[in-house]
This record gives sequence, structure tokens and C-alpha cells, in this order.
Amino acid sequence: MTIEEVLIDLKKKIKTQLPKEITISDVDFEGPELVIYTEEPRKFADDGDLIKGLAKELRKRIVVRPDPKVLAQPEEAIEVISRIVSSESGISSHFFDVDTGEVVIEAEKPGLVIGRHGETLREITKEIGWMPKVVRTPPMKSTTVNNIRQFMRTNKEERKALLKTIGRKIHRGLSSKDKWVRLTTLGACREVGRSCFLLSTPETRILIDCGVNVSGEDNGTPYLYVPEVHPISQIDAVVLTHPHLDHIGLVPLLYKYGFEGPVYCTPPTRDMMALLQLDYLDVAAREGKKIPYESAMIREVLKHTITLNYGDVTDIGPDMKLTLHNAGHILGSSVAHFHVGDGLYNIAFTGDFKYEKTRLFDPAVNDFPRVETIVMEATYGGSRDMQPSRKDAERHLQEIAKETLENGGNLLIPTFAVGRSQEVMIVLEEAIRKGIISDVPVYLDGMIYEATAIHTTHPEYLNNELRTQIFHKGMNPFLAKCFVQVDSKEKRQKIIDDREPCIVLATSGMMNGGPVMEYLKAFGPEEKNTLVFVGYQAEGTLGRRIQKGWKEIPMHAAGGRTETVKINMHIDTVDGFSGHSDRMQLMEYIRKMRPRPEHVLTQHGDEKNCMDLASSIYRKFKIETRAPMNLETIRLA
Amino acid sequence: MTIEEVLIDLKKKIKTQLPKEITISDVDFEGPELVIYTEEPRKFADDGDLIKGLAKELRKRIVVRPDPKVLAQPEEAIEVISRIVSSESGISSHFFDVDTGEVVIEAEKPGLVIGRHGETLREITKEIGWMPKVVRTPPMKSTTVNNIRQFMRTNKEERKALLKTIGRKIHRGLSSKDKWVRLTTLGACREVGRSCFLLSTPETRILIDCGVNVSGEDNGTPYLYVPEVHPISQIDAVVLTHPHLDHIGLVPLLYKYGFEGPVYCTPPTRDMMALLQLDYLDVAAREGKKIPYESAMIREVLKHTITLNYGDVTDIGPDMKLTLHNAGHILGSSVAHFHVGDGLYNIAFTGDFKYEKTRLFDPAVNDFPRVETIVMEATYGGSRDMQPSRKDAERHLQEIAKETLENGGNLLIPTFAVGRSQEVMIVLEEAIRKGIISDVPVYLDGMIYEATAIHTTHPEYLNNELRTQIFHKGMNPFLAKCFVQVDSKEKRQKIIDDREPCIVLATSGMMNGGPVMEYLKAFGPEEKNTLVFVGYQAEGTLGRRIQKGWKEIPMHAAGGRTETVKINMHIDTVDGFSGHSDRMQLMEYIRKMRPRPEHVLTQHGDEKNCMDLASSIYRKFKIETRAPMNLETIRLA
Repeated sequence: MTIEEVLIDLKKKIKTQLPKEITISDVDFEGPELVIYTEEPRKFADDGDLIKGLAKELRKRIVVRPDPKVLAQPEEAIEVISRIVSSESGISSHFFDVDTGEVVIEAEKPGLVIGRHGETLREITKEIGWMPKVVRTPPMKSTTVNNIRQFMRTNKEERKALLKTIGRKIHRGLSSKDKWVRLTTLGACREVGRSCFLLSTPETRILIDCGVNVSGEDNGTPYLYVPEVHPISQIDAVVLTHPHLDHIGLVPLLYKYGFEGPVYCTPPTRDMMALLQLDYLDVAAREGKKIPYESAMIREVLKHTITLNYGDVTDIGPDMKLTLHNAGHILGSSVAHFHVGDGLYNIAFTGDFKYEKTRLFDPAVNDFPRVETIVMEATYGGSRDMQPSRKDAERHLQEIAKETLENGGNLLIPTFAVGRSQEVMIVLEEAIRKGIISDVPVYLDGMIYEATAIHTTHPEYLNNELRTQIFHKGMNPFLAKCFVQVDSKEKRQKIIDDREPCIVLATSGMMNGGPVMEYLKAFGPEEKNTLVFVGYQAEGTLGRRIQKGWKEIPMHAAGGRTETVKINMHIDTVDGFSGHSDRMQLMEYIRKMRPRPEHVLTQHGDEKNCMDLASSIYRKFKIETRAPMNLETIRLA
Repeated sequence: MTIEEVLIDLKKKIKTQLPKEITISDVDFEGPELVIYTEEPRKFADDGDLIKGLAKELRKRIVVRPDPKVLAQPEEAIEVISRIVSSESGISSHFFDVDTGEVVIEAEKPGLVIGRHGETLREITKEIGWMPKVVRTPPMKSTTVNNIRQFMRTNKEERKALLKTIGRKIHRGLSSKDKWVRLTTLGACREVGRSCFLLSTPETRILIDCGVNVSGEDNGTPYLYVPEVHPISQIDAVVLTHPHLDHIGLVPLLYKYGFEGPVYCTPPTRDMMALLQLDYLDVAAREGKKIPYESAMIREVLKHTITLNYGDVTDIGPDMKLTLHNAGHILGSSVAHFHVGDGLYNIAFTGDFKYEKTRLFDPAVNDFPRVETIVMEATYGGSRDMQPSRKDAERHLQEIAKETLENGGNLLIPTFAVGRSQEVMIVLEEAIRKGIISDVPVYLDGMIYEATAIHTTHPEYLNNELRTQIFHKGMNPFLAKCFVQVDSKEKRQKIIDDREPCIVLATSGMMNGGPVMEYLKAFGPEEKNTLVFVGYQAEGTLGRRIQKGWKEIPMHAAGGRTETVKINMHIDTVDGFSGHSDRMQLMEYIRKMRPRPEHVLTQHGDEKNCMDLASSIYRKFKIETRAPMNLETIRLA
């Protein structure tokens, strides 16, 4: 069947499913979705289960679009919306897209625009014809989110054409009689960094992650030059588990190499990916390093990104369905589950994951309809890689803060902008709120504020407790008044000059550059101050050296001079804040997995840890395991 | 270094190595060889060790060519040659190639033209300047060999250009800092048929065998469509272990797909490959089957074939050396040994092999300078796949022949043209010569005569005893007067009509077509005749049915009718003539291998046999083994 015949066939099926009075003017594919155009959007809105029923019957994701001629004028529509929706929703803008018949409503409280089970949305459609789509007004102003929304609107024509092409590719017919599934390892096997896998069948080729090893010299890039990946233009899609550079750093390069397909990830992953890739270019430019792509390619990534929410079962190729599940590692991080063929095979990639409930997230999902192979991380896969519980870690951090502040000192915490910072913020906010530590400002320097703003844009991706606290108790810890953004040199200088007791969270997390260096210079020489590490310090970084006890640090000063900074401040480390599962959690993740997988592949850990975890899982659970090397192609089915 | 710089460098090195009085006019690559042009070919000829010394020093295969201006006139040269070389040598033709400065001398006894350690050759060069190259006049007239020689002469200009291009590719510099070795399985894994492997490094990609599964329906072709093989135009070379269709049937297709590189194999493999590929097309045309290439592509294969003798260590890529060794399976069959990088890795492919001395061949070689991985066949890898010794098999066959002939019957032996026929011929010739069976004609019908003629062209590839018998005792069993070629319908009809006691060897070996069918119709109904199988009869073939005891065979007759042939003749099977190692020989091959390999991969056997052999070798020798599936890529180093 040609794609046109497929569409005619679908149109017929839809007509038999729908009540007679609803006419269908057209159906078409847009990305993974099937779009139904109708002159009776109001009648669709009458029955909330109509679309659900169609989706289930056709096994497709369905979007209904009104025919332009039945749409109310925008001015009139805005009036109607403001009449229907409670003013408490805090609507800040409307964007009418005639092409899609959608009105994008930005609101502080999207829930009030959506209503119970989408009731309010349907009411809006019934009155104005337009299909409302609600996005959150970030309660913290995020430049990234604003820029991305603006960018997507500016490029909507191009994007629509792209989605149509992608949609037709996804739903093309099967072309081969052969049935097989293969996995090619292109990076992160028996190492950490440059995560990249290729999942392929005779029909479809999917790249899972495309990271860069920032600490690697020659080997920073995955093996993208091997023939399995070529022609890159004909790869069907890229799926991203989360937006750390070792998983997404080289996605823009793919577009430079001719890739034209979609990138699938959660909405927070998209937003933070853009932030981190642009920062990667910035930092490299400052340090005079060469990155093999330019910011134009980051915009290509954005244009081609199709966001999926956890649990959305989505066609991404003629024989492949993708579902993303919570991985508990950072906001929007995903376990990517692939259903191949019609029941032929199931494989899941954990990405980086945390199998423990944290302040921000639920534990990673390990319950799937089916799963034959799981590809899991092994960062802490060694038999001795145990970490304190999160509770102990929090208590430890609070004690250090308390003591330092009581001594009139400043507490400096180097952290990564994304993930770790927000965990620590929640702990500090609670400690201040409950009076465990004194009510001092917590300064956020570097990209931390921006990353936090992105968190507040996507509260759906936080765990239950935190969501309840934010939505129902109206208490968003990220908005607490203790948090102060440091957004200028002057502000930073003032903090340093004032020497008022305070807490500073600053990047970079391993102290190899970034604003944290300025605070180190200022706070380092005084004994009453404390520097506390909450994350892993890699060999060769300044962080590791200080951890080891270096007391004199040569640093660049104004005028190209080198000055020596004396480190007299107290140095401490709090383990247990990692976004990775420790050894016990890794083993528990497999032990409790439903269904029990037939094969486990370990990666994203050094050689010893990958092998140790693989052999322990085999011995304990009698599941076939393997710690593949890079550059293997494994036949799964 | 560019290739021109490499050549300049080599020229310098050669000059310092050579005596001053020898001047070098040019050096260039032709295929894997380094060609040295000189105006003093006579001085080169003075010292037999000069070229050997250069080859060792430069680690290159070296050819010396005279500058055209120092060459004698052909008429004069012929006179000189006939003066120097004994008339017993039976020189039948001279071919002077001004481009290469070579004179190709075709002689019945090449040894007499070559002389002890090449003495006579050097004498010829000293007198006439031309470099003599000696080929054997087939003592049995072989159309194939004649046609190939004629074809190569006609296309020598094109071939020279090809060899130059190939040479420059082989000797290009290294381009990658990465070091790895991978093996991709494209066919014959856990199955028999369509043998095809890809050995790749960052520099070089080599295809080993490219067969077709003639009995396969959909799956007759190796997985040539997977990206590892593409672009096919950039594969560096194809290496062939032996010329059976399941190893060489689809080599011509590669040229259709854009491959432009060389094919490496022994001279007998080249000749028999041409014969068998052309026959494959003929048979398919008669049966109305479609083969995906035409005879023009077989000519492309010939044009691109570079023959290597056993033991020649040859550069086939910037980081790869190939050496072919005797495999004992059929004439010129090879174990292909690859030395990768400068000591990085060694891997050998047995192809099909016989680890037992037979009438024709020495046992397969299992002694290498180094070998980390061996890829071996497992046709008879099952623990019960034992065969009688060759001696018992021979005695059994002789007894059957004796009894049948004494009863005045005819003995019909269906055989493959290549390999099995010649083994049986030697046994029968000896039995007749020694009077064990009566002196009856042994008719050779189908391609058997032609295949035997190719054997007589390459006696160097037979075992020691047979060579001694042929060269020193002047007794070539293939030329015995008992063998009679059946080269016309009339001759065949006469044999059938006469019903004189005789032995008939006829193709096809499994009785699915070919002249053997005519003899079956004629001899089948009479009880005094015997049909004896000397090879494996696959499920679904007529041979297998008759073996099982079918007594009535429907057959096509003249005028499109079907007639039923009654099988009253005696049916017998002689095991032990197989060209494959039986289970015990497979195990012995590994047990005695030097050095001991680190990994053994089993293939070319059904799933059970591949797994059984792999696990037995592991248990017995504690060597890591694996029975890979098709479509895997295994990282070797």
C-alpha cells in the first residue's frame, strides 16, 4: 500500500467509527500523529471519549483539527475564553495558529484551563471552534523556554512541512520479508561518556542518545564513522534519554552530517538540551576549544524535536513503537522502551537512572508490558559502590550548613546546573523553612537559576509529593524567597565584598571553571568558611585536587597574572546526592523488574564496573548478561 | 605520506640495497606487488637472491621488469629459449608482452623451463632481457583454462590499469588513529550455504567468500543489504576460500553492485570458479530460474582476480596481510589467514576443510605464525558425525564395483564435478591398474572431464605422492586410458544402447538434473546394475528419495510426457569420501593447532552442529568458543 492508500483506508475506518453527523474533510500524518480535519470540532468536543476510542481502534495517536472556516475570530475567541476560564488561571497570552486550528494558551495554572478530565478545554472548543493547547507560564522567568516557544512559532511553516514528511516516513509500509533486530554499540561501553546506540531492523534504524565525552581527548566522539550508521540521512530517528552532554552533546552534529529525521524526548529534555548545548558552545569558545558544530545546528535539533510525555506509546517507524518512562535521574529523564515488530521484540534502555525516591523524582520505572532485553547503566556497578541513603546525605549537608553559618562563615557548594542543584535547593529550603539552619540567602550563580526555571515550567515531571505541594498547597519550594539569582558581575562582587553569612550554589560542579572559581578565591583563605562537594569529582579536576587536600591553588588573576590562593576553608564531601543508582539500587532494579528480562546488557561504567555488575546479575538472578564492548553488533532477534 | 612519496622513498631504499651497477628506471605498485623497472634485467638475473633480499627488507612482494629498450626481438628470443630449454619441456607457445617485459611460455613440463631454483629462467633473462613466466599446457585440453588465458591477454591493457589502481589503494597510508578489528557474519552461520564474512578495521574492509544457498528459497543470498557492507564500491577486496557455489556463487553480483576491487584466490580456484559460475547461469537458464547477474559480470570477476599461491604473504590493505594455506577440501581450496595491523591481530578462516590425507590432497594446514581467532566449518560438527576412514571407503567402493562388473552390470556414480569425482577417479584407476576390478571404461559425463582437466593444469596443488607420481614417474592417473569423456548426446546414447559393462561418473551429484538422469532411466530397471552414492544427498533431492527406497520415479520424457522409471537396480551408499572433516577430524584440527587459538567461531553447519562443536571444543580444550548467528558484528580487538 502507498501512503495515500493507507490514508484513504484510515479515513474509511474513521467514518465508520464516528457518528454520522460528524464529517471528516481530510486525514493526514504529522509526525507520529494522525490528524483528522473536521468542520464539526464542536461535535467532537461533545464526546470526550470519541478520540480515545478512535486512538484505541486504529492504534494511532490522534489529533483533531477544525477546518479554518468554522473558527471564531481571535478577538471574539479571547473574550469567550476569558468568560469560560477562571481568572485565577492567570492566562498571560493567546497564540492563534490558523494552520492547525490551535490556540496556544499560556497560563500560570494550566490545570484551571484544562478542567477536570479536559472538560474546560472541550467547552472552549464548542464555543469557538479552535482547539486549545495549554502551556505553563514559567513561574520563574526562563529565557530558554521563552526563546524556544518563540523559535517554534517563527518556524511553524517549516516545522509543519517537516512533520508531514516525517509522518509519511513513519507510516510507510513494510519493505522486507526478513525479520531481525540488531543493536550496535557506538559509545559508552565499558566507559562513561559518549553514550550512543543504534537499534536496527530491516525497516528502521534508531539512534539512542548521541553524547560527547567532554573529558576525553581523542575519544570524545561516538564511533559515528562506522558503516552501520550510514547513510546518516537515512536514520529514522534519534531518541534521547536525558539532556546531559554525555548523552546529547553531539546530536546537532548529526544534522550537520545530513540527518533529517526527528528527535524524540520529553519536553524538559528538549528545553534543557538547548540550554546545555548552547552553553557547551559558549564554554568551548571561551576556552578556545573547537566543537564540530555551530549554534545553527542546535536550532535544527529544536525544529526536528517531537516531544513525548511519559507513557505515550508512539509509532516512530513502520515496525517500531517508543514509550518513554520516568528514569528518576533528572527532570524528564527517561527509560526508553521499544516495541519492535508486531510482538517480535522488546528492548528498553535505562539511560542514567535512580532507583530510589528522591526529593524531586519517583524511582525509575521497571515495569513494562514486555521486555526481552534491558540495556542498563553501571556507573556504580562495582560490588563496593554503595552510597549512604538520601536521608543520611541530607542530614549530613544540613549539619555542615548549620555549623558553618553558626560560625559566621559562608558555605560554598559547587554543583552541576541541572539536577543536583535542584535537589540541594529543596533540602536547604526545607532546612531554612523549618529553622534547622538560619535564614540566610541562598545564592544561585551560573546556569542554576535558568535550569531551575525550566524545572518550574514542567512540574508534571516532579514526583507526587512535590506536585501536590506545588499545585494543591500553592507552595513551590523553588520560588522560596531565600533563593537569589546572581545575574551580574556586580551582584557577585557584592556578595563577596559583604561577607554576610550565606550559602552559594555555583557552577561548575567539578570546579574546572565557572563562577564557582570567584567564590573559591574569596572564601578559600578563611577558616570559618566551608566548601562542600555534593557530586563526584573526576580525576584531574580542581575539585578532586582540593578533595585530596591541596592547600595552595594557582589561579588566573586579572592582568594575566597567576596568583596562589590559600585554601584554609573547611573542606567536606557529602555522598548520597547522586542521580545514579548505587550498586544495591542497580541490583534491586533488576530483581524487581516486571517482567523478568531475558538479557541484561551493562554499559555506562568503567570496564570493571560493567563486568562486575553483569556477572553479579547473572550469578544472582540467572539472567543472561553481557558487558558489550564498543563497536559490537548484537543480534537480538 | 602520499603514495608518490611512498614510492620515492621505496626507490631510495632499493637503490641503497642494490649493487651500484644496477640502475632503477622506475618503481610502481601493481596490485599487491612492487614492480621495479630496470635497464639491467640481466644483472638482476645474475644473482638469484637479489630479489629475495629486497622482498625481505621491504616486506613487499617484488617483480622486476626490464625496460622495453633492452629486450631482444621476439623471433630472436624464441630461438634463444629453444636453445636454452630442453626440448622435453614441450613448449607449445610464447606470448610476448611489451608492457610488462614478460614472455609467457606455455609448456607441458614447466619444471624444465624453470630449472633448479629458477636457474633456467635466469639464464633466459640474461640472454634475451625478457622475464619469462611459465604456465602449464594442460595435459588434458581444458576449454576453461584456454578461454581464461585468452581473455586475460585480450584485456591486458585494462587489467594493467586496474592493477595499478588497486596497488595504490593497497599501499595508501593509514588514515585513522583508532585500532580495532571487527567481524560481521553475513551468511552460513548456523546454516550451510551462502558463506560470507566481512572483516573490517578503520582502514580496510575485506569480504571473505560470497556464496549462494542454491537450495534456499528466500534466503539464498547473504545479507549484503546491511549497512556494514556499504558502500560496496569501497570494499577493499574479496578473498575466496574455494570455488563451490555456496562460497563463490554471488561474487559476480558484487561487481554489479559497484564493487571495483580485487578478488584474491589460488589459480585453481579462479579457473574452477569461472567454470562453476558459467554453469550456474546455464543451469538456471535451462530451468527458467533467475540469477541476479549475467555472464559479463563473471568476466569482471576474472579481470579483477589476483591469484596467490599457498604461502605467499601478500598486502591486501594498508593494515592487512593475507596468506592462503592448503585446506585439503578440493583443488586449491584454502585456509585464509589474515595478519591485521603490525602485530595487532591474526584471524584465519578455514573455509571447508579436510583434516585427513586423501588421494589428492594433504591435510588442511593448522600451523600459523600467529592466530588469535579461527573461524571453522562445522558441517559434521555433531557429536555423532563420524565417518569411516578413507581407506575403508575406498575398499567398500571397490567391492561394489567388482561385484557389479562381475555380474555383467553397469555401475552408476552420481557425483559433483569438482572434487569428489577426481577422488573417485583415482580410486577406480588404481583398482583397474592393479586388476582388482576388470578393465572397463570409466565414462565421465557432465562437467567432470573439464574439472579434471583443470586439475591436470595445476598439479602443484595436489599432494606430494600424487605430484611425485605425475612429475617423476610420468604417471598421471587422470590421463589413464580407462577414462573416456562423454561429450555428445550420441556418445551417451551409444553407451546406453551398448550395455557393455562399464562405470559411469555423471553429474549432478544429488540427481536433481544433469546427464546422470539419462543413465538412471536406462540402468534403473535392471537388477544387475548398481547405483552408488558417494556424497551427501540433501533432503528433497531425488538422490535422497532413491536412497530412502523409492522404487518408482516419475520423470520427464520426450514430448513433454511423464514416464515412470522403475528402480530395480541395486542401491548402495559409500560414506567416507567427503571433502569435509568429520567430527573427530574437526576436534583434532583444533587440538593440534599451533599456536593454540584464543577464540574459535563455528559456522557452516546446521544450528545443532555449530553449537555442539563449539561447546565440545570449549569443554575439551578450554578455548573460548562461539557459534555466532548471522548479522552479528563481533569485536575481535
